[in-house]
Amino acid sequence: MSAAPSLPTFAGVVPPVATPLLPDGTIDHTSLERLVERLIDEGVSGLFALGSTGETAYFTDDQRVELLTTIVRAAAGRVPIIAGAIELTAPRIIATARRLVDAGAQAIVTTAPLYTLNSVTEVAEHFRMIAAAIDVPLWAYDVPVRVHSKLGIDMLVQLGTEGVIHGVKDSSGDDVSFRRLIAANVAAGRPLQLLTGHELVVDAMALAGADGVVPGFANVEAEGYVRLWDAAANGDWNAARTEQERINRLFDIVFQPSGLSGDATGVGAFKAAMHARGIIDHPTMAVTVQSLDADTVARIRSILSEQGILPVSVA
Amino acid sequence: MSAAPSLPTFAGVVPPVATPLLPDGTIDHTSLERLVERLIDEGVSGLFALGSTGETAYFTDDQRVELLTTIVRAAAGRVPIIAGAIELTAPRIIATARRLVDAGAQAIVTTAPLYTLNSVTEVAEHFRMIAAAIDVPLWAYDVPVRVHSKLGIDMLVQLGTEGVIHGVKDSSGDDVSFRRLIAANVAAGRPLQLLTGHELVVDAMALAGADGVVPGFANVEAEGYVRLWDAAANGDWNAARTEQERINRLFDIVFQPSGLSGDATGVGAFKAAMHARGIIDHPTMAVTVQSLDADTVARIRSILSEQGILPVSVA
Amino acid sequence: MSAAPSLPTFAGVVPPVATPLLPDGTIDHTSLERLVERLIDEGVSGLFALGSTGETAYFTDDQRVELLTTIVRAAAGRVPIIAGAIELTAPRIIATARRLVDAGAQAIVTTAPLYTLNSVTEVAEHFRMIAAAIDVPLWAYDVPVRVHSKLGIDMLVQLGTEGVIHGVKDSSGDDVSFRRLIAANVAAGRPLQLLTGHELVVDAMALAGADGVVPGFANVEAEGYVRLWDAAANGDWNAARTEQERINRLFDIVFQPSGLSGDATGVGAFKAAMHARGIIDHPTMAVTVQSLDADTVARIRSILSEQGILPVSVA
Amino acid sequence: MSAAPSLPTFAGVVPPVATPLLPDGTIDHTSLERLVERLIDEGVSGLFALGSTGETAYFTDDQRVELLTTIVRAAAGRVPIIAGAIELTAPRIIATARRLVDAGAQAIVTTAPLYTLNSVTEVAEHFRMIAAAIDVPLWAYDVPVRVHSKLGIDMLVQLGTEGVIHGVKDSSGDDVSFRRLIAANVAAGRPLQLLTGHELVVDAMALAGADGVVPGFANVEAEGYVRLWDAAANGDWNAARTEQERINRLFDIVFQPSGLSGDATGVGAFKAAMHARGIIDHPTMAVTVQSLDADTVARIRSILSEQGILPVSVA
Repeated sequence: MSAAPSLPTFAGVVPPVATPLLPDGTIDHTSLERLVERLIDEGVSGLFALGSTGETAYFTDDQRVELLTTIVRAAAGRVPIIAGAIELTAPRIIATARRLVDAGAQAIVTTAPLYTLNSVTEVAEHFRMIAAAIDVPLWAYDVPVRVHSKLGIDMLVQLGTEGVIHGVKDSSGDDVSFRRLIAANVAAGRPLQLLTGHELVVDAMALAGADGVVPGFANVEAEGYVRLWDAAANGDWNAARTEQERINRLFDIVFQPSGLSGDATGVGAFKAAMHARGIIDHPTMAVTVQSLDADTVARIRSILSEQGILPVSVA
Repeated sequence: MSAAPSLPTFAGVVPPVATPLLPDGTIDHTSLERLVERLIDEGVSGLFALGSTGETAYFTDDQRVELLTTIVRAAAGRVPIIAGAIELTAPRIIATARRLVDAGAQAIVTTAPLYTLNSVTEVAEHFRMIAAAIDVPLWAYDVPVRVHSKLGIDMLVQLGTEGVIHGVKDSSGDDVSFRRLIAANVAAGRPLQLLTGHELVVDAMALAGADGVVPGFANVEAEGYVRLWDAAANGDWNAARTEQERINRLFDIVFQPSGLSGDATGVGAFKAAMHARGIIDHPTMAVTVQSLDADTVARIRSILSEQGILPVSVA
Repeated sequence: MSAAPSLPTFAGVVPPVATPLLPDGTIDHTSLERLVERLIDEGVSGLFALGSTGETAYFTDDQRVELLTTIVRAAAGRVPIIAGAIELTAPRIIATARRLVDAGAQAIVTTAPLYTLNSVTEVAEHFRMIAAAIDVPLWAYDVPVRVHSKLGIDMLVQLGTEGVIHGVKDSSGDDVSFRRLIAANVAAGRPLQLLTGHELVVDAMALAGADGVVPGFANVEAEGYVRLWDAAANGDWNAARTEQERINRLFDIVFQPSGLSGDATGVGAFKAAMHARGIIDHPTMAVTVQSLDADTVARIRSILSEQGILPVSVA
Repeated sequence: MSAAPSLPTFAGVVPPVATPLLPDGTIDHTSLERLVERLIDEGVSGLFALGSTGETAYFTDDQRVELLTTIVRAAAGRVPIIAGAIELTAPRIIATARRLVDAGAQAIVTTAPLYTLNSVTEVAEHFRMIAAAIDVPLWAYDVPVRVHSKLGIDMLVQLGTEGVIHGVKDSSGDDVSFRRLIAANVAAGRPLQLLTGHELVVDAMALAGADGVVPGFANVEAEGYVRLWDAAANGDWNAARTEQERINRLFDIVFQPSGLSGDATGVGAFKAAMHARGIIDHPTMAVTVQSLDADTVARIRSILSEQGILPVSVA
């Protein structure tokens, strides 16, 4: 559990890798390799495999291992890889996580229990039980819109101090809480690395003290986030803001679908744009998730074109 | 998918079977067999294995199969068994459900997807995909406090009419919606069996037209629910109400814990009472769930004693 | 504050009186008088003035007094009248309530504070402060869908025992909690009268022990609820259920509008039906609330006609 | 409604003025004048009267006029004053707002309707009706934690373009939505001024493009926010961040109370600190809101002392 020097760190731009699928719903390994190659080429500093953007909840553990294996092989050790073990409770998460570690995950990230009704004490015990059962660093993923509970600041810093968790991916939608987490982490001697999932305000969260960002949109274009993060790291906040505003205009692709689910909308827009740019061969969604219609795809292509990132020469 | 005469039906009193554990957290098969025997002795008409009261979310699929196998063996065909396949999404639910069917489940019950953000169209497709992949009837479980979304009346009746689902367990906490579901089901020719999970208002829900109840408290005492249901079936509503009110006084055991989680409180109170009555050997909770303290257990025993169901001669 | 014999009681069928408006948005006193006359003719046992169905939140205190004055005059002492004082906090509620008492309200009903963020202790103090400042009985109105907090059972029974509140109108959507409130009230010696606002399950709530119902649909037709309540009072539960099911088929009018707000939908359907039956002269909604379109109104008329309550001979 | 040059603007630091009370609960005008004087001395650019921090929901309209009158007189035209008209619906808000305008409010701010169940169309109409009925600019106040609905970006920009609203105070807790509102406002030609209520992330929100901040903590110390805002305006983001972090350490006073309501906690901590610094004579809370205990007050004083802002020489 000790933070030995050899442990992987996750900071800067760490995209959640999308899951390219063939029209029959099976994994498109060729597109996945191309995607990973492109992300690394554009300068990301780590990969977040099997997250929400990767539609991980829709895949069996066998498929998850298959996905992770390709990501690990394609990354070839150039950047560290953290993998999501999304499951109901500690015993089930441990089973999944061990398979992912065997497949090459250098760290595991998971949420509070799903479906169950737990106290803070029980949620802390949940993370302790998982950390004790795996051989790589554990991260906590705070995403109330999916988990329907929020991870508390005191618990997170306590678990960090104990060495149970090594970092937090914050997709809580609560910037005030994240700022307070940053301050509490500093006061505790920085046991945690803190990544934001709020890709529209990375400049602001960097100013606030975030260690990095997990931007789903990087699947469409990663280099903007890399430039943004470098500018912030150099204290050039005006440049960071300018880049963020450029990205946000592109991010409008996510607001083009209407009447669809959250998963169909967000990941659907990313996949449509990735397909338009030639990064993936098919915009196929995971099973049961609806596809975008042609008009929506046309509006997405139009935004990419207006912002000058279509066509693209693909690696 | 057709409702052939040989399909199992679930109506009347169908308790969710609790999961007795040994102090080391492994399954206490001896107590589980005793519990099943007792439930059947007291007259229940079916068993709901691997539900929320059974702490199913905390168990791996291997453990779930182990639990179900014992329940099936103990029931010995005397009552039909429906088993919960609680997992994130259709592909994962199917994998779990198939193992449970192999282990003897005569029907499968599951919820809308967990963790994901889906539309009604996608949730309907989710149930269709699962039903098509298993060989036994599928039921829908509506429990918004855990799933954080509500199954709509139109979708449920449509899925019933299609033969996708054969029934609904309603733990929605919304009696008006349940009443409207009953009326819509009648208007559609009764494709669905409708069970309520609201064990404090079974008399009222029977009057409203429910086909049965899934009462967690039946793990402590089932014969009251059997009497209640029989009275309702005979139109003796005053007797049904009197029995419900007696049960509700006993149900106060659930309001004795304070400061604990929902899972620790509800299942904890049941297990403490089952232990006090000699039905299970240990009140051990699933991993990470906190145990009741001695004072709370004493208050629970006191309620049982005041209401005259302690001590009990155990079968 | 003592429950002297002369205090008005509210039990049985106590409809929330709708607010007929002229096309220019001013109060249609002629229709309002006709409505009150009809409700009393059909046998209601009390009137709930200025509730949610009465669109009370959209009216100034001057308009509320104007409305109540007409209702009081039309009722002419034949049934008791309880009036809603819907405002933000105790000081503002007291100001409104005193005007309503001066205008003839024989009891006042109000909710927990709106807009503020209060503890249970503060909410209890809120009711105590109001009760101490008015000369008529105070009732608590539990409607979480509007107030966004739930009144707790312990607090309500405590306030009843203190003589602070004399009853509760429960529109909480939580039948289990209501059943537990009934039991707790009985155990405390029945300090409270308990009315349900859930007009689709009145038979079931009567069986559970409710003292009465506040049915918005009674503005369209009250005699069904009177029959239902009489049957329940006589222990004829099958008749009560049959009447409830007939009402519920009529209540489908509320599910005809689509894409409109909750207020436009529910009150809009009632007003359209009242207009169709000749009870009010115009279906005008309160300011800012959208009106139903012609197709929706036609569907509503069709339901009334199919169920045989159109046309009607108006008093 | 046109944006004439003479209209007041609200940008930079615009504190919500707290409401000092005497021990009997009546308004402490002496302390209120001292508070206003101090805020202006410390360099604020406007005053937000009768907001949530001012406990406005707990006061009658007579008291609100009394409060505003003193604030206006004390400000003596040195800074513009915007006043909250917090009430249920447009007709009631208009009545309140007109009294506040008569008492000197140069702009009015209000929320979506309370208690009612409205659509976006109806909420837009609500703001249009209010704007048409008052002679000063209208602002929209987005505070979902109190109103329980969120104002949409499209609606706000549309109302801005129509000249219905002139600005937004955003306390939505949703930084991503606020960032998108900023971008949409820029794209529409900046019809709106956009203030954030999130006082812990003002540096980040300034970087994101906010026009100002409404910091409750400025009642305790305003000069820090003025320095922060000036630094941001000069592009000195490191200085802005350093000042924000200093303020945030002071803001820990708000996390000292435990077990109390949101209103008792936040405003209670501010009042305790204001009292400790000699800015107000009594820390009395509005009626029904609980007071802090002595231990909590001691911890608050200790934080102020550690951070070097106690004692203070009061103007």
